[in-house]
Amino acid sequence: MIERISILGTGLLGTSVGLALRAAGYRGAITGWNRSPKGAQAALSMGAIDSIAADPLQAARESQVVLLAMPIYATLDFMEKLSGVLGSEHLVTDVGSTKARITTAAGRLFNTPERAAFLPGHPMAGKERGGAALGDANLFRGTVWLFTDLPTWKRSSSAVALVQGWREWVAAMGSKCIDLDPARHDELVAWVSHLPQFLATALSALLEEKVGDAPELKDVGGRALREMTRLGASPYSMWRDIALTNTEAVQATLLALEQRLAQLRDNLRSPELRDEFEQANKFRQE
Amino acid sequence: MIERISILGTGLLGTSVGLALRAAGYRGAITGWNRSPKGAQAALSMGAIDSIAADPLQAARESQVVLLAMPIYATLDFMEKLSGVLGSEHLVTDVGSTKARITTAAGRLFNTPERAAFLPGHPMAGKERGGAALGDANLFRGTVWLFTDLPTWKRSSSAVALVQGWREWVAAMGSKCIDLDPARHDELVAWVSHLPQFLATALSALLEEKVGDAPELKDVGGRALREMTRLGASPYSMWRDIALTNTEAVQATLLALEQRLAQLRDNLRSPELRDEFEQANKFRQE
Repeated sequence: MIERISILGTGLLGTSVGLALRAAGYRGAITGWNRSPKGAQAALSMGAIDSIAADPLQAARESQVVLLAMPIYATLDFMEKLSGVLGSEHLVTDVGSTKARITTAAGRLFNTPERAAFLPGHPMAGKERGGAALGDANLFRGTVWLFTDLPTWKRSSSAVALVQGWREWVAAMGSKCIDLDPARHDELVAWVSHLPQFLATALSALLEEKVGDAPELKDVGGRALREMTRLGASPYSMWRDIALTNTEAVQATLLALEQRLAQLRDNLRSPELRDEFEQANKFRQE
Repeated sequence: MIERISILGTGLLGTSVGLALRAAGYRGAITGWNRSPKGAQAALSMGAIDSIAADPLQAARESQVVLLAMPIYATLDFMEKLSGVLGSEHLVTDVGSTKARITTAAGRLFNTPERAAFLPGHPMAGKERGGAALGDANLFRGTVWLFTDLPTWKRSSSAVALVQGWREWVAAMGSKCIDLDPARHDELVAWVSHLPQFLATALSALLEEKVGDAPELKDVGGRALREMTRLGASPYSMWRDIALTNTEAVQATLLALEQRLAQLRDNLRSPELRDEFEQANKFRQE
């Protein structure tokens, strides 16, 4: 039923969606647009999109489904622009890592019977680095794709069908759809995604200061150190908007971890250290 | 030249050494002893040792090289016992994760021309979990094996030859020998090994408390979360002696990280966050 998709932003996620759709058997059109033409060319040459759009708004108008695959503030900007040019025969969806701001904007700009639908989405998949060249048809296999759709939104029947159709393609790409309240989403990802990232950044920066001048000694840490610092390679550009749009939730997780580390520091020579290891072991029991 | 080795403690490291020695072409005898007979049986059935010793001190007396592959306090106990029964034709070495205590004991109990040699060693290799069953002939490939040998120690010429011979087998197992001052060793591993572990433990324990009751939502974090918490599976028994013998150095690293996290928390909405990411990115540039 969905036959015309446009992907606005052909970085790692946009390119991977194009590749995954093709791998899952999608045979309709996929047009792509990217702020830097190089990224669009790369996505085209990889087969993630089959044409490059000169004008993203025009491409959106000619599509049934518009995927915004760009940072959060750029997504918010495009939402403003698209709400003026799309109608009830369109679905817009996104991949932004925080959902409160975007879901509020979606309620204000979309999701009435006369307007386009907006389905706020967040695939829990990624790599330390972005870019079309790392695009991967299997990026979403075995992952979770979160949605913060609100049951109060009233949509046209064609928009409802597009939402359902997009969810089915997400499942076909290998991802499990889970619906969450937007505030709960942002709190949850603060714990399981943003805290691990900011922690890896702080740890890597600290170690660079303390042992960075002895490259040979970086090897001393081995696999465990490599794992705990791999996310330290993530660029600021991928995390800036997350820090700005989920500040309070992230601050709460950081403060909780600081307190937990201080407690562990006090307990290094006490039996409480055993309890902390046992609690940690529980988290790792699958 | 080394033809009789005994491995006291056939857990993950002891068993891996036996397997790695065989893979590297060692053809001499390897006898093994383990506190629990089950671990010795497992090492025997895997070919890591070719006989099980009934009495560890007797096995040591009949060997040229004795590898202590057990927790730090157990190593210190065995050092006391072995120093009374071994002589200048023996080398004892170990795999303990902290080296100040062990190196001090080595100077007091060994390393005179009349006594056995003791070479304090620390292979930077391991897994989250221990046990002979996880033993791996390739565990040391591409890793670093730290030594905290003191240049002031006077050894018999046969002991000197055994030390040299053991270093050559370590290299043959695929590990690079690096010599460090014991205090510098303990400080360095606090940064690159102990801090990452205690951090993973604290993070995993905190997440168990916050999201552990929703097992489906653990999947939400994906690969990044799995990496940052994998070390959370490490058992207390493997880390207790490290916490007790490197307390001050570990406390200093934990405090530094707490302060770094608090600073990052204050800077989430400020341009300083970019500097922190760039500093972290440097650590990950190979």
